Amino acid sequence: MHFNEILEKLKKGQSTVVDFKIKDNPIILTAAALEKAKENDISFLDNNSRFNLRNLIQTSKASALLLPAYDNYIIEIANKISVDWILLKEPKIAFAETLEFLYPSEIETEGIHKSAVIGENVKIGPGVSIGANAYIGDNTEIGAGTIIYAGVVVYKKVSIGAQNTIHANSVIHSGSKLGDECVINANAVIGGEGFGFVPTSNGWKKMPQVGTVILKNKVEIGSGSTVDRPSVGETIIGEDTKIDNQVQIGHGVTTGKGCAMAAQVGIAGGAQIGNGVILAGQVGVSNKVKVGDRVIASSKTGIVTNVEAGNIVSGFPAIPNKLWLRCSANFKKLPEIAKAIRQLDRRNAR
Amino acid sequence: MHFNEILEKLKKGQSTVVDFKIKDNPIILTAAALEKAKENDISFLDNNSRFNLRNLIQTSKASALLLPAYDNYIIEIANKISVDWILLKEPKIAFAETLEFLYPSEIETEGIHKSAVIGENVKIGPGVSIGANAYIGDNTEIGAGTIIYAGVVVYKKVSIGAQNTIHANSVIHSGSKLGDECVINANAVIGGEGFGFVPTSNGWKKMPQVGTVILKNKVEIGSGSTVDRPSVGETIIGEDTKIDNQVQIGHGVTTGKGCAMAAQVGIAGGAQIGNGVILAGQVGVSNKVKVGDRVIASSKTGIVTNVEAGNIVSGFPAIPNKLWLRCSANFKKLPEIAKAIRQLDRRNAR
Amino acid sequence: MHFNEILEKLKKGQSTVVDFKIKDNPIILTAAALEKAKENDISFLDNNSRFNLRNLIQTSKASALLLPAYDNYIIEIANKISVDWILLKEPKIAFAETLEFLYPSEIETEGIHKSAVIGENVKIGPGVSIGANAYIGDNTEIGAGTIIYAGVVVYKKVSIGAQNTIHANSVIHSGSKLGDECVINANAVIGGEGFGFVPTSNGWKKMPQVGTVILKNKVEIGSGSTVDRPSVGETIIGEDTKIDNQVQIGHGVTTGKGCAMAAQVGIAGGAQIGNGVILAGQVGVSNKVKVGDRVIASSKTGIVTNVEAGNIVSGFPAIPNKLWLRCSANFKKLPEIAKAIRQLDRRNAR
Repeated sequence: MHFNEILEKLKKGQSTVVDFKIKDNPIILTAAALEKAKENDISFLDNNSRFNLRNLIQTSKASALLLPAYDNYIIEIANKISVDWILLKEPKIAFAETLEFLYPSEIETEGIHKSAVIGENVKIGPGVSIGANAYIGDNTEIGAGTIIYAGVVVYKKVSIGAQNTIHANSVIHSGSKLGDECVINANAVIGGEGFGFVPTSNGWKKMPQVGTVILKNKVEIGSGSTVDRPSVGETIIGEDTKIDNQVQIGHGVTTGKGCAMAAQVGIAGGAQIGNGVILAGQVGVSNKVKVGDRVIASSKTGIVTNVEAGNIVSGFPAIPNKLWLRCSANFKKLPEIAKAIRQLDRRNAR
Repeated sequence: MHFNEILEKLKKGQSTVVDFKIKDNPIILTAAALEKAKENDISFLDNNSRFNLRNLIQTSKASALLLPAYDNYIIEIANKISVDWILLKEPKIAFAETLEFLYPSEIETEGIHKSAVIGENVKIGPGVSIGANAYIGDNTEIGAGTIIYAGVVVYKKVSIGAQNTIHANSVIHSGSKLGDECVINANAVIGGEGFGFVPTSNGWKKMPQVGTVILKNKVEIGSGSTVDRPSVGETIIGEDTKIDNQVQIGHGVTTGKGCAMAAQVGIAGGAQIGNGVILAGQVGVSNKVKVGDRVIASSKTGIVTNVEAGNIVSGFPAIPNKLWLRCSANFKKLPEIAKAIRQLDRRNAR
Repeated sequence: MHFNEILEKLKKGQSTVVDFKIKDNPIILTAAALEKAKENDISFLDNNSRFNLRNLIQTSKASALLLPAYDNYIIEIANKISVDWILLKEPKIAFAETLEFLYPSEIETEGIHKSAVIGENVKIGPGVSIGANAYIGDNTEIGAGTIIYAGVVVYKKVSIGAQNTIHANSVIHSGSKLGDECVINANAVIGGEGFGFVPTSNGWKKMPQVGTVILKNKVEIGSGSTVDRPSVGETIIGEDTKIDNQVQIGHGVTTGKGCAMAAQVGIAGGAQIGNGVILAGQVGVSNKVKVGDRVIASSKTGIVTNVEAGNIVSGFPAIPNKLWLRCSANFKKLPEIAKAIRQLDRRNAR
């Protein structure tokens, strides 16, 4: 694809082209990071990149660059270098779109593979692909254009919307409801039974888990992640919420729209997560806790009590991020602090 | 089902009916939480519920309630409201039993699906179900009434008892032994090789892992959890021990009876866990550590040394829970503490 | 196998036989830990074992022992006990080799199972085994002697070297490249899409993940672990690096040679891990952080900034291990420290 073709496509996208220089109009074959790019590669520099990254645009071997539009330092360099470039309001979005142009996604198998096992009374929309050795239980519905890869197991009475992508060997339990344009990555488990046991004099009595899991539109679930169904009612993942690998969502959890949860986050049963919440890696949220809209928790945070909207929290138990940074800085000084007290004490005792 | 039918069934159960009011004798179709219940729903209030939850019984739209028997405040309200109710010693157990009546469990496929691959010399008991595309290795035994869902892989020489439920795409390695009435949830791995490597001048030398995993009766393993086999000897999960999703049990670990381990717990190789131990989410236990009977560890605790029976521990490294609560409260004050010391020091220096 | 046969085999191995006593030359049937061994078992004592373990060689019922060669206390005992023994420079390596002799590994199925689905233009080397219901995508290559167990899904255009072992129900995404002698344990996912989303006014914009995952020779990946592919470029796991269960390797991570990562470690996108790095259980590494060669991080450490080669770190945020041990010891004293300050303050105020 010639660079001017990319320019024309970007003009129709979300990244806002502000200016461009197309002189050599190179053929663009692949995309790469600035420091690894070679001839016929396109690369990008994000808004507000760090200094050493910004200087890479002078030395990068990329044949074309997507650059931030409102940065005089960058524009100055851009005017000196010989490669072609586009200035954009959102260069990272432009790069994402360019990757879509350069690497159109391929599905593994089209149509329903002959080795797939389809139960009774399954409704399959137009353009659905079902891979080898997949299993679809009775009375399940699969919407138009959904791709189900090899080895996926869908239990009975599942409702899967349109344009979903369900990767290999993931499992979707009975009664689960997926909206449209969701992605379930490999080996994820949707709708497994919640962990509910009542102590009795004869040991644990299992609380039946007869609720359901609902994934709204555009939800993505990472590889190996698990979303449990509750004893009654629903576990709900809100629209456009993105969940990374090996995340555990307990029974009866609800999340709002547009959240992002990094790998190995664990959310215990009944927690209520607001809209736009961002949880970094290995964060834990205790059961029934409410986390307000737009809360951000840094990695390894343990949220054990409600957090009001808009807060940034850290540590375990979670406290405001800025306070935690100061406390952590002082944690390192604890041996000195203890020593200072012993000295003061001794002096006072004199 | 009419409410009086539920009453009759509960009388035969474990929850101890103390009193009841059946006047309208509504038809009960579904079960729900108090705040979400609607007509023809049954709901419950647990013993020792929080105040705001207890008051919900006045406003709940449930058609019938399961209530705690020994609570004068509740009884007073119960006598005023128009819905039918049952008073019970164990309302939560009554609710669990009611869910079993209302939602009898369905299996995905009965009998052995024609796409399942069964090895040589496999012994299959009466009433066993094996789902689509499951694989059972040679010389494996499967006891009466066990249900194996689609895509499960059982290696060679596995012994599976009666009445087990093994969910889709889980894997059971060679030599593993499961008792009766166990539940293996989706994508769990039982009997994978332990992580054992010996450093040599030529890199890591693998320690062969030729031991086995034994799950006693009534063990439940969560989705995506992994229980490793040891180099020699056994990894043993004790009777009635319940393990949540994404839990890692290292090679050679033994657990006692009736333990509960929440999601994302990790237990390193050779740790010995007593009876009735409760580990909350994301807890870690170091290798070869002994955790005594009935120990409770709160979320994210890191147990690095032996813990005596009956202790409640928290933090990393684990300390008594009460002490940890006080330490954590003071952690937040570390900047003030450091400041106070600087001031005292300055004053003393004068 | 008679004990002298084991001796002859060990002489050809890596453990360096220094001395031996073969008198009864017992038949060795199985291997066991010292405290659990019985007749016809072989057992071992490692170099530098703890005192109570070392004394076990006097009471062990093992029929033969592999013992450390340069330990006068052990040699003295060895000369008194009646069982046969071998003294070795590396008794643990000798034990590993002995396990290989006693328990030759068996594969589940030989050849390509008739239920496996093989795509178009797949190149399969000599001696490859592919298990029941496995799926191999188009244009994939599988090198000589590689064993693929039941239910594995390999997408398109994957390159798998020779002598790999890929356990049941694991998934290898399109474009991944595996070297030789790798082990992928059950339900692991190699090459899933990295977690990359750009915030826009219309919600999250997905960054296409068109990079690849490369596992060099002798890499092992634990059950349920996930290694993500990046948006551009490669995620690389270095030669002989061993990864335990439920470990998350983010997109674009690179690791050096000979690392070991224990269960539930999480490494965020773009982190660069050196050679010989050892990360204990539940450690987290933040994105783009550089961890130098031979760094050791104890369990639950959170590495958020670069760590220089050779350091041992602990805690969150990570600090030098020795400092962390002292800080943790003082953390337990925080209530006393706070009290001491209040008292000093009061005294000073007088």
